Amino acid sequence: MSATDTDGMNFHTRKWVRPEDLNANGTLFGGSLLKWIDEEAAIYAIIQLGNYRVVTKFISEINFEASAVQGDLVEMGLIATHFGRTSLTMRAVVRNMITRRTILTIEKIVFVNLGDDGNPTPHGYDSITYKRDRMPTQHSATGAIRLP
Amino acid sequence: MSATDTDGMNFHTRKWVRPEDLNANGTLFGGSLLKWIDEEAAIYAIIQLGNYRVVTKFISEINFEASAVQGDLVEMGLIATHFGRTSLTMRAVVRNMITRRTILTIEKIVFVNLGDDGNPTPHGYDSITYKRDRMPTQHSATGAIRLP
Amino acid sequence: MSATDTDGMNFHTRKWVRPEDLNANGTLFGGSLLKWIDEEAAIYAIIQLGNYRVVTKFISEINFEASAVQGDLVEMGLIATHFGRTSLTMRAVVRNMITRRTILTIEKIVFVNLGDDGNPTPHGYDSITYKRDRMPTQHSATGAIRLP
Amino acid sequence: MSATDTDGMNFHTRKWVRPEDLNANGTLFGGSLLKWIDEEAAIYAIIQLGNYRVVTKFISEINFEASAVQGDLVEMGLIATHFGRTSLTMRAVVRNMITRRTILTIEKIVFVNLGDDGNPTPHGYDSITYKRDRMPTQHSATGAIRLP
Amino acid sequence: MSATDTDGMNFHTRKWVRPEDLNANGTLFGGSLLKWIDEEAAIYAIIQLGNYRVVTKFISEINFEASAVQGDLVEMGLIATHFGRTSLTMRAVVRNMITRRTILTIEKIVFVNLGDDGNPTPHGYDSITYKRDRMPTQHSATGAIRLP
Amino acid sequence: MSATDTDGMNFHTRKWVRPEDLNANGTLFGGSLLKWIDEEAAIYAIIQLGNYRVVTKFISEINFEASAVQGDLVEMGLIATHFGRTSLTMRAVVRNMITRRTILTIEKIVFVNLGDDGNPTPHGYDSITYKRDRMPTQHSATGAIRLP
Repeated sequence: MSATDTDGMNFHTRKWVRPEDLNANGTLFGGSLLKWIDEEAAIYAIIQLGNYRVVTKFISEINFEASAVQGDLVEMGLIATHFGRTSLTMRAVVRNMITRRTILTIEKIVFVNLGDDGNPTPHGYDSITYKRDRMPTQHSATGAIRLP
Repeated sequence: MSATDTDGMNFHTRKWVRPEDLNANGTLFGGSLLKWIDEEAAIYAIIQLGNYRVVTKFISEINFEASAVQGDLVEMGLIATHFGRTSLTMRAVVRNMITRRTILTIEKIVFVNLGDDGNPTPHGYDSITYKRDRMPTQHSATGAIRLP
Repeated sequence: MSATDTDGMNFHTRKWVRPEDLNANGTLFGGSLLKWIDEEAAIYAIIQLGNYRVVTKFISEINFEASAVQGDLVEMGLIATHFGRTSLTMRAVVRNMITRRTILTIEKIVFVNLGDDGNPTPHGYDSITYKRDRMPTQHSATGAIRLP
Repeated sequence: MSATDTDGMNFHTRKWVRPEDLNANGTLFGGSLLKWIDEEAAIYAIIQLGNYRVVTKFISEINFEASAVQGDLVEMGLIATHFGRTSLTMRAVVRNMITRRTILTIEKIVFVNLGDDGNPTPHGYDSITYKRDRMPTQHSATGAIRLP
Repeated sequence: MSATDTDGMNFHTRKWVRPEDLNANGTLFGGSLLKWIDEEAAIYAIIQLGNYRVVTKFISEINFEASAVQGDLVEMGLIATHFGRTSLTMRAVVRNMITRRTILTIEKIVFVNLGDDGNPTPHGYDSITYKRDRMPTQHSATGAIRLP
Repeated sequence: MSATDTDGMNFHTRKWVRPEDLNANGTLFGGSLLKWIDEEAAIYAIIQLGNYRVVTKFISEINFEASAVQGDLVEMGLIATHFGRTSLTMRAVVRNMITRRTILTIEKIVFVNLGDDGNPTPHGYDSITYKRDRMPTQHSATGAIRLP
């Protein structure tokens, strides 16, 4: 059992490893794992910063501690660790849902808060919200159809 | 604001609506939504029944109350509502994470618990676990490589 | 042999079940099935209503009668069963092409006809066309390149 | 209006061009088109030869006459034109469902009938079946779960 | 060993055949192969013509000489063989990276150079560049966010 | 212009950024980038170590220097920097093919060489091969069909 620190971390998105997620050796493709984490981190950042315009800026070293196979259940945990002026730093853990064994840990994933002009802009926050009260008022997509 | 009942429901998996999820009108493709729910329900059933061999057996009527567009954050909530002898019934809600508006509700998604022979088999449970103590001991995939 | 009623139903789109369509148990992923049906129903609705702007509004209960495995050929059948003022109701059957065994049946899939403003709008039809004479004159995508 | 010959040709599988099918110029990606045709031809060959073990052996020249854009409905037509001893030759047309304009035509797509050992083997047929009476008795996938 | 002529041909893009690339028989899906080649040819054409607006116009006959299986490494080679007034003709070879065995050869893939209006337009080149000095100044996508 | 060191580095696989590669902001999805690099590194490692059984073990910090948009051409460069007893360390650069601007750099990607039992095993190499003379004799996939 790995001693990964998951204090205060919420595990939300889950994946059931399917054939399309496997590499040619039949184990979970590292690239799929990285894609899943990046998407989950983007979602976390949007909620914390109240802004849809966020981009991945930095990812610290990644140690692949264990693998996963077809049929495994995998969950991703994130927690904000630092609020910069225009950035947000998160810590990420991916683990097997059943065995709780850590698959990988990333100490720092940094997202940058962008303004309408696509440049970094201050977000004005310095602590975690648990209430989703930072509602983005500006949306990247426009003109789409909504049902009444 | 819709008055969807989400009492006791946990929302786990989240999606950030990307171009590949859109239909030709630029709104969230209904088929993608259904695919996401089915996967999330399968994961929920595996944990509750302690068995990887579960299959979708029945889905009650689905009312698409609202749509979503590119960039929206969507989350899926599930709760077990009935434990049959060989089945598990769940209730599902998909909603916009930011506005909390309900996108769709499904009153009943029924999964069947299968044995090694692929036939329905009793699972022996009659209530929800919150502890993941129903650890599957049997796995559908075999022979794959694991890192030490 | 199931006694599913397929009177008057045309089976068009076909799928050859590939590894990417499987769930972790090696059977056809329910979510893929639902995605395929939703796309086929959208196409059927567009032709019947002569309008590209259609969205899924309601799907009645779905009973998964049989599964499919890698290599199976699957076909989808649809027939319009009711023309509402702003909606179209269809009946859908998915079956194994070779054995003709029904995989699932959906009594009602309802699509809504939308206007330019994204709101439901009357379509003006009350019966099935077999001639594709309801040519949409308005297109959702614009400005794309066409070969001469 | 192109004068493509579609005599005796059945159009089955249909696609609704979605964002994931587009190239970077916003038109239907040629590679997606080719992938769709190859899959449809494989399905056609399996039914005609009563054997799941078929592979693409040859495709004659392809002239891209017109393109398609997001939201277009596209359908694929095939007809067997020659039954060799171990092969089947088909003619393929892809066209816009609404305008009936031909997108591309392929005069010859040749599939080879394989035996258990993966080598070409005689199929014993010399004409088109319209009855699906050539039921494959041998399947490429084994051991999967089926619902009772 | 096949005697395919690869003189002067550069092999760039490589693929590791994964489960999602397989057909239902467990061999490399012909449609995936065609999709990969079409994308690689588009990239080659863009560089040679200094223009992002290029489309597939013609593909000469394709002979599938060998297949590939999960885990195989595959590489694609291209070389310009003719510069027309508004077109570029290329020769393509796909082969197994390890055994060097040819999987398929296409003598002619023709791309057309388009102008802003989507019509064929002269590109002004008559020989291969090895320097990437034909820098496109016009881009198909606009308004996207760039990091500073 | 960034001063990224690409000495001795070969750029092979190329991508044309399509809609399916974009995040909801319309820029290249970081997760797609990471998936592409991981696949390219796996291919590089297989060739250098003469073994298909390799897995990602470690990725050093990643700095996203620039983004890319739909239509951009992106290429990936790799070079082996250290041969351990059971591992291979590579350096990776992803850049815009046209502008040569660096999109990201990864100083260390470590792959581990696995034996039949899935455990790390010595590979016996200590320098780069440019000849592909390290032909794997053992394959992860078996029993598939090959054309004669």
